[in-house]
Amino acid sequence: MRNIPTATVSRLVTYLRILTDLDDAEVKRTSSDVLAEEAQVSAFQVRKDLAYFGRFGTRGAGYSVPTLRRELRRILGLTRPWNVAIMGMGRLGQALADYPNFDQYDFLLKASFDTDPSKVGQHVGGVDVYAVDELEERVKASSIDIAFLTVPAQVAQQAADRLVAAGIRGILNFAPTVINVPAGVFIEPVDFLAGLKRLAFYLQGPAPKERVGA
Amino acid sequence: MRNIPTATVSRLVTYLRILTDLDDAEVKRTSSDVLAEEAQVSAFQVRKDLAYFGRFGTRGAGYSVPTLRRELRRILGLTRPWNVAIMGMGRLGQALADYPNFDQYDFLLKASFDTDPSKVGQHVGGVDVYAVDELEERVKASSIDIAFLTVPAQVAQQAADRLVAAGIRGILNFAPTVINVPAGVFIEPVDFLAGLKRLAFYLQGPAPKERVGA
Repeated sequence: MRNIPTATVSRLVTYLRILTDLDDAEVKRTSSDVLAEEAQVSAFQVRKDLAYFGRFGTRGAGYSVPTLRRELRRILGLTRPWNVAIMGMGRLGQALADYPNFDQYDFLLKASFDTDPSKVGQHVGGVDVYAVDELEERVKASSIDIAFLTVPAQVAQQAADRLVAAGIRGILNFAPTVINVPAGVFIEPVDFLAGLKRLAFYLQGPAPKERVGA
Repeated sequence: MRNIPTATVSRLVTYLRILTDLDDAEVKRTSSDVLAEEAQVSAFQVRKDLAYFGRFGTRGAGYSVPTLRRELRRILGLTRPWNVAIMGMGRLGQALADYPNFDQYDFLLKASFDTDPSKVGQHVGGVDVYAVDELEERVKASSIDIAFLTVPAQVAQQAADRLVAAGIRGILNFAPTVINVPAGVFIEPVDFLAGLKRLAFYLQGPAPKERVGA
């Protein structure tokens, strides 16, 4: 695979969300103009992002919605299941264990881990809580690919190091701190504050005519 | 204020994060090339985004990091406090009440609301839990601007309608469903799945050389 810009990957995720909405609304065809408008980028950018992966549209006729949706799922690696664990079963970890939509794209919650002995052995939101000492064993046994890092910020780097040592290659970081991982391991931060800052921008002035989106 | 593209607002939030990191590292000057590289956009895009709001750099000399940081905070409306409430004190609402970094930009957690009488009157993570019946009164009394919507998906629209009726103009939506709000009210979705999908992309193939970011 060529080196794809991270911003292109982010936009592909956005295009897939838009195509899913169009497909659910039984729209059959779309265009780079429509995708561009919805994703708030230029049509040139849409075509350039897709061109990394091949030719999908027909000049003048646009894209087939179900075909492009299927192709984007394939490109993004969403046609196979991914096994997920939660590291840190505090309130946030427990909330994520309850979150209903992970299985929409075959993200399968397989295990969770905590250092608190009173939590170990419990079953929360459909997932068993294991001791952190069992991490290596459970990651192997359940072929866990991805971990949600939901521990306090001051122990997040240490917890990430343990995940990496246990063979985890993808981390969704909910801890409000920067985590360093070695090459070949991928980390995506979840930043609540970015959305809050955008709200502050929109709320400060005279109300613009347009909605931000939903 | 002119109509600013939502994608520009998102990028301004990213530029501010980069400038904050540079400023914390005591870097004094930067350029559109550096900001572009870090934000994964073109230098032309950086200059275009900033040009909506005035002239900040000097041709050939780039930008002063502390000045541009301060200007972006002003542009984004982050030089005044914003009063925040949490709607729905389930596990996610409670986790957010504990989240330590909201006050970094003067987001002040003023109240929380739940329909469960056993939660009302409690104090969770530094915030009082009120009955939803007290919403209008508390929003007025504490001048609440923004609400975190952390109720189950099936009641999220109804809860959003109540927030809007009570005078809330900004909603950070954690419920995994699309919420409609009237013109003049702003809603920002928090989508955990977008980060997960990006991880799936990076994990599927032979590991690229670069890290995704931290």
